[in-house]
Parts: sequence; C-alpha cells; structure tokens
Amino acid sequence: MSVHRRRGQRPDGSSGKLLVIGGAESHSEEDDTILERFATLAGGATARLVVIATASESPADREKEYQAVFEGLGVAEAVPLRLEHRDQANSDHAVAALERATGVFFTGGDQLRITTVLGGSRADLTLHARLAEGLVLAGTSAGAAMMSSTMILSGQDAAVSTASVRTGPGMEFLPGVLIDMHFAERGRLNRLLSAIAMFPHELGLGIDENTAILVDGDDFEVLGAGSVTVIDAGLATAIRAPIENDGPIALCGVQLHVLPAGYHFDLAERRPRD
Amino acid sequence: MSVHRRRGQRPDGSSGKLLVIGGAESHSEEDDTILERFATLAGGATARLVVIATASESPADREKEYQAVFEGLGVAEAVPLRLEHRDQANSDHAVAALERATGVFFTGGDQLRITTVLGGSRADLTLHARLAEGLVLAGTSAGAAMMSSTMILSGQDAAVSTASVRTGPGMEFLPGVLIDMHFAERGRLNRLLSAIAMFPHELGLGIDENTAILVDGDDFEVLGAGSVTVIDAGLATAIRAPIENDGPIALCGVQLHVLPAGYHFDLAERRPRD
Repeated sequence: MSVHRRRGQRPDGSSGKLLVIGGAESHSEEDDTILERFATLAGGATARLVVIATASESPADREKEYQAVFEGLGVAEAVPLRLEHRDQANSDHAVAALERATGVFFTGGDQLRITTVLGGSRADLTLHARLAEGLVLAGTSAGAAMMSSTMILSGQDAAVSTASVRTGPGMEFLPGVLIDMHFAERGRLNRLLSAIAMFPHELGLGIDENTAILVDGDDFEVLGAGSVTVIDAGLATAIRAPIENDGPIALCGVQLHVLPAGYHFDLAERRPRD
Repeated sequence: MSVHRRRGQRPDGSSGKLLVIGGAESHSEEDDTILERFATLAGGATARLVVIATASESPADREKEYQAVFEGLGVAEAVPLRLEHRDQANSDHAVAALERATGVFFTGGDQLRITTVLGGSRADLTLHARLAEGLVLAGTSAGAAMMSSTMILSGQDAAVSTASVRTGPGMEFLPGVLIDMHFAERGRLNRLLSAIAMFPHELGLGIDENTAILVDGDDFEVLGAGSVTVIDAGLATAIRAPIENDGPIALCGVQLHVLPAGYHFDLAERRPRD
C-alpha cells in the first residue's frame, strides 16, 4: 500500500479500521464506549495494542494512562512504543512492534510532533501497510487530527477569517478529509469553515469530545456522547477565502450534517446513510 | 399593520428597515460603519432617534452612551425612552415618542426584559405600525435577538443537545427567523443548530459581533467586520431533537451559508443573491 495515491481515495482492499476520536474520551467504567470498541475490534482478549504518545509532552504519563485503561479492558497486551526522534521511527524495533500489533493508539498533544517524527518514516510506511492488512488504528485529539489528508496546525477557535488558520498535510490514513476535534466544546465551527473555504475539496469533520467516528471502507459510524459535524462545500456556489488580510470568508451553499451516535455516513457519496 | 400574521411572512408594503446587529458594534470614529448606516437611513442630519435601553440593567449608562454616539454622527435628535415597566410601555408619552421618531435603537442586555416590558403594549403596536410606515428599527445583541419570531432565551454556547436551549416568541419584527448573536466569538453554532433542530421552519441567523444585517423587504445585506451564518434546515432529510434527556441532536442535509459584508440574502427564496 502506497502513501501516494489520488486525493480523497482510500486504497482498494483496505481491511483495516480507523477510530478517530475528538479528544477527552471517557476512561471510566461507566462510560468507556469508545476505548472498549477499539479493544474489541483489535481482538479483545487476544488484542495486542501499541500506544504511541509522540504528540504528548509527557509521553510516559500518557503511555501509563492508556496501558492501564487497555489492561483494564482485558486485552492480551498493551505496550508503549516511544517515538520521540526520527531514528526511533526508522528503527527495526518500531517496525517489529507495529508488525506485531493488532491495534495502534495515538494519544493527544501536538499533531505537528507526529508528522515531524513519523512522517515518511519506516513506522509511517508500516502503519499504512498494516492498515491495509486489517490493523485497527485509533487516535484521539492530535492523534485524530493527524489522520486526515489536511490537518489544522493552529488557529483561533472562533476564527472568523482564514488569516489565523494554518494547515498542512496530515498522515493521510483517511484521505479527502480535514478533521477538527474538541469541536462543540471549543466552538470551532468558524475555524473549520475557514479551512474548508480554502480547501473545499476536503470534507470537513468536526468531532466533539468523547465522540468518535469508526471508519470501515467508505462508511463511518458515529460513537460516543456528542456529535460529528460534517461540512461539505463541494457544491458551494460561491467561496471567498482571503488569506492576505484579515477579511472574513464567504461560503454559499454548503451542506451541513450533525450526526450523533448510531448514525452512518457514506464518505464516497458524501451523504448520511439511511 | 397587525402583529398577528402568518409565520414567516413580512407584511406587504412594509417600507421600514431593520438593522439587526450581533453585539459589540464599534463606536470608534475609525469604524462606525453600522451605527453610521443607521443614522443615515433614519435621515442623517434630520434624523430623530429614540434609544430604548430596556434590556440593560444600567439603562442610564446605555442611554448616555448611544446618545453621545448618535449626536457625534450629527443627527437632529437622539433621546432616550425609558421603558422599565409596562405602564411606561402603555403610556401616551411612549406612543408620542415613537410616533415622532424616524429611527429607534434597542440596546443589548436581556431579551426577556424587552418582551416582558414591551410585549403586546401600545409601544409594541406603535413600533410595528411605524415600521410599516418607514421607521428604521435597529437593535444590538438582545435588541437583535428580540426582533425574531423565535428567540433563544438561554443555552450553553457550545450546547450539543437541545436540553439546555430554551426558546420563546420574539417581538416578530422579522418573522420566520431565529437570531443568535455574538455568534463566532462565543462559538454558538451548536446552540443555534439545537434550536433549529427543534424548529426547522425558522431560518437560523448567527450574527457575529460588530456585524449586522440590514433588512429591506425580503432582502438583507450584511454590514460590518464579521459574517452572518445562515442555517436552513427546510430541506433537511432527517432531524432528531430530543428534549427529554441530554441526548445529542441529529440534523442531516442542512444548508449553510457564511456571508460577510456586501453579500445579500433573499429571505423569501432562502438563498444568497447573485
């Protein structure tokens, strides 16, 4: 499986699943819907999970936190893979760990740390190859944003213009989309709309906290407590996205969907499924 | 002109204009676009303006503030009309002041104070009648929200469910719409979507700060620094709006428009004008 492919197209025959979490997913026994689904999909009692906390400034804390959660969910194995430098991401050790895994989990933090450490590395190529073979790849917050083909690097939550919104290429596990997280909680509609005004070929996905999409082929299902807001500017009749000054964007005729748990969306047809 | 009319229909022959401001409009000499437009429309040097600060907890401060701004803009007259109690709103004095005015300005505060003091009063009826005769009616923040047929009374800015969003009938100067203000700044998309999920027959208008719509017949024009976000759920294919519990809404197939200054929208056709 090549990382170079036509924009918006998932590779044919990919049997892996992506679990893209909007941040702050619950770890409690009363509500571990999302993480339990991840553990189950990765094999449950036979799951071999790898936790990658590259995005975090305190990777050891995040590794311990998720190891404890996954062990509590009864998986066979939950081990951290520390990737803080590119030589680690290019190491035999990293490749072997990812080859062995049935599920890989990326923690939150700064998405740019993930791309700068992993982008184009052997770990990156291995993850894409393993995804095609059935790996379950999960990420929360920054670990979710990086899965897209275009990710938001920074920008005011309530940005009313494109001037403050910086974007760059994501790791492209889910091509054709631009993901923003902590969506309702941080009031990020305008930030996502500003990004989509610049790049209307990308489908905008705003994922609330403790909410996720489970991507399987062209379909995604919404899990968790909040909603997923889908912004489709493909048929927009007029767009203005000034980046030179601080002027506001214009977007006419955008389709918007708000999808809570249990709803499905067809990424190829770009519409909610009946 | 009757205040009782079919939902969504502005009375035929209304020659008045509405200026609906999303709050925090600039008063500075460098940027007084919105308030200057109000003064000009109301007659400029011959304008007779009335300031109503009913929504405010410190009406005297607000009255002085806007009197100073409008006098600075060179109008003939800018006087406060203090309406703190219903007897004032039903007084000959109030009716006479509104009969004399060419423009009326409602300050911000709490929109429920406007409806409880003015709703159904002689001042209310006089305002509707004068609007049909050519009055320019302006309001900011709460003074904007109250102009709609349905207004949001309270609700978390980032509400992801309908449970926290309380609505009630507005003063209906602009029927068929539901207005939210401070829109981008307070990240209120989800709050507006939650309200529209319950009442998809209303057109949702989210107006940013220092931004306004100028309504003239079926047309509105956007003024100011930010944008107006239009939510049209008329053609939505599926809606779920649970109010009994805290469950999230679902909204499939909503039209969204983001319109900055200079853009026009057709309220009858529910689409941006070319």
